[in-house]
Amino acid sequence: MPLATALSDSMHGDMLDFELIVVRITDADGATGMGYTYTVNAGGDAVARMIDPYLGDILRGEDADLIDALWQKMWWHLHYAGRGGHVTSAISAVDIALWDLKARRMGQPLWRVFGGFDPRVPVYAGGIDLQFSTEQLLAQADGFRAQGFRAIKMKVGRPDLREDVARVAAMREHLGDGFPLMVDANMRWSADQAIAAARELRAFDLLWLEEPVIPDDLRGQARVLAAGGLPIAAGENLHTLYEFRAAIDAEAVTYPEPDVSNCGGMTVFRKIAALAEAHNLPVTSHGVHDLTVHCLAAAPNRTYMEAHGFSLEPYLAETMPIVDGVVTAPDRPGHGLDLDFDRLASLRA
Amino acid sequence: MPLATALSDSMHGDMLDFELIVVRITDADGATGMGYTYTVNAGGDAVARMIDPYLGDILRGEDADLIDALWQKMWWHLHYAGRGGHVTSAISAVDIALWDLKARRMGQPLWRVFGGFDPRVPVYAGGIDLQFSTEQLLAQADGFRAQGFRAIKMKVGRPDLREDVARVAAMREHLGDGFPLMVDANMRWSADQAIAAARELRAFDLLWLEEPVIPDDLRGQARVLAAGGLPIAAGENLHTLYEFRAAIDAEAVTYPEPDVSNCGGMTVFRKIAALAEAHNLPVTSHGVHDLTVHCLAAAPNRTYMEAHGFSLEPYLAETMPIVDGVVTAPDRPGHGLDLDFDRLASLRA
Ligand SMILES: [Mg+2]
Ligand SMILES: [Mg+2]
Repeated sequence: MPLATALSDSMHGDMLDFELIVVRITDADGATGMGYTYTVNAGGDAVARMIDPYLGDILRGEDADLIDALWQKMWWHLHYAGRGGHVTSAISAVDIALWDLKARRMGQPLWRVFGGFDPRVPVYAGGIDLQFSTEQLLAQADGFRAQGFRAIKMKVGRPDLREDVARVAAMREHLGDGFPLMVDANMRWSADQAIAAARELRAFDLLWLEEPVIPDDLRGQARVLAAGGLPIAAGENLHTLYEFRAAIDAEAVTYPEPDVSNCGGMTVFRKIAALAEAHNLPVTSHGVHDLTVHCLAAAPNRTYMEAHGFSLEPYLAETMPIVDGVVTAPDRPGHGLDLDFDRLASLRA
Repeated sequence: MPLATALSDSMHGDMLDFELIVVRITDADGATGMGYTYTVNAGGDAVARMIDPYLGDILRGEDADLIDALWQKMWWHLHYAGRGGHVTSAISAVDIALWDLKARRMGQPLWRVFGGFDPRVPVYAGGIDLQFSTEQLLAQADGFRAQGFRAIKMKVGRPDLREDVARVAAMREHLGDGFPLMVDANMRWSADQAIAAARELRAFDLLWLEEPVIPDDLRGQARVLAAGGLPIAAGENLHTLYEFRAAIDAEAVTYPEPDVSNCGGMTVFRKIAALAEAHNLPVTSHGVHDLTVHCLAAAPNRTYMEAHGFSLEPYLAETMPIVDGVVTAPDRPGHGLDLDFDRLASLRA
């Protein structure tokens, strides 16, 4: 999937495109469900192979309604050498398709099937903009506001912390006091670098600091949270319910941030939301907002949902308008997304 | 790769074959290195896709000698949605091939390149035998002893703990007092089930209890270790250096047990061995003993190496004899393995 603008963060380099992996499931009655996942830069064909043949082989002929049973079956089929990572992305895409199928059969939107809390979900624009000039950064922010966003995240993690501070200062000045602003370091720093950065950046009234360190360093991340003076968001690189539990147990995260396309699908996203609620924490999200909106619209502890720079909008029949910082989960059956497969086919590798 | 006998454990079901993924690297001078990894039941084609095209794309033209730099490059290229799991298996195969290439260029065996400790490594037979009858189990043990083994591991985790106890009792009786015997539950139990099992099984003088619980439950595993009265081995399902650090920090493991084909290759296996040494712990191993022997022959804290039921011996030009419970790391350059690709080709899917 080509991107309209080259995107950039501190660890993934320049991103010109991403890989989209789509699953369609058809049941014995001809009803269908669709799910998708994606990768940044690499690995997409491996994810596709996990789905076809490996997951397909064990799913054909099963009862599509028993999603948690199928989830366990998929997990254990690819557990050896798997246990997270790309396997979880493959399972996520299938899980989302199964939920879509179930809800379409019911004639209900997913957020209602999940129980329902409030279809109106606050949303923020996740800028992927580390290499943007300050002018581009501020122009992007104006664009976000014109689209209806009322909260914005920007990247940090430039080689010199003073550059980050200057860019955040420029954004705060541009957006005005009280406008919700987050920053995302994409794992660039050591714990001590992150503490130093957080202490500099907290002058700018930030809602959170995201992924200050690698997700494998929970002890370090807990130190950043305790000593840095900023709330911490993290989760796009955690791929199991257990990893979220460990991060929460370590007191390393304020805003758990699962990505429904790589945490294990809607089944696991909702368990993570419940885990966060049990710890008196909010739940936010990473990426794929057109799917996530159903999970957050059913979670009483939901906070801002990320609207991500990797957008499928050119390939969707209907999109969700952003009105004064809020999107509303659709009332169409399932997740309500219909991809334009003819347009997508022209991009096929 | 077909198996001569159907193997079985508590979580992977019957195993009739496994998938082998082989990497060959040729440098600009025509020197070559070979590495491999494998999967149980599923996922092998996805691992192959991670290597070709994704890892191949970023490795071609690089300096093959800078293995730790290439390792980092591979890790970050497949980090998004990866970060362990099958990615680590793919990286492991490449890393092993790079080490083989380096040592062949030097004309030295790997265990000497790694520093060298003692080429004679004690070895145990890892039975994969949960569904064997007691007669088959004891006959297998006789076969292992005839092959030269002086330590044996057997599976536990049958539906009724009394069956496990009876089988372990029969083995202890058959092998005699003092013969090193280990048991492996392959993650089947809850922590409390495992504590109850360990308390029953410790009457049989076991060297260790392996994987009593899922690897995601380190707190539970630490309870098993503290309350069960048996040392714990674990690691075949841990896929990063960080996961081993977390298990050791949690006081959840006595015998860290990396698999060089899924922990990140020889580069990471050796870091795990050093981490264990720093915690005054021994290091054992899982699977692929023809590769692992070089790592353990260079580790002062090495204990028994597993000789695994998934054997490549029919496809190897030279094999390692087991003499009185010990194998000796070869003095041929590199890891010293040469696969018979003509024979392997006949198995190609
Ligand atoms: Mg982020
Ligand atoms: Mg084992």
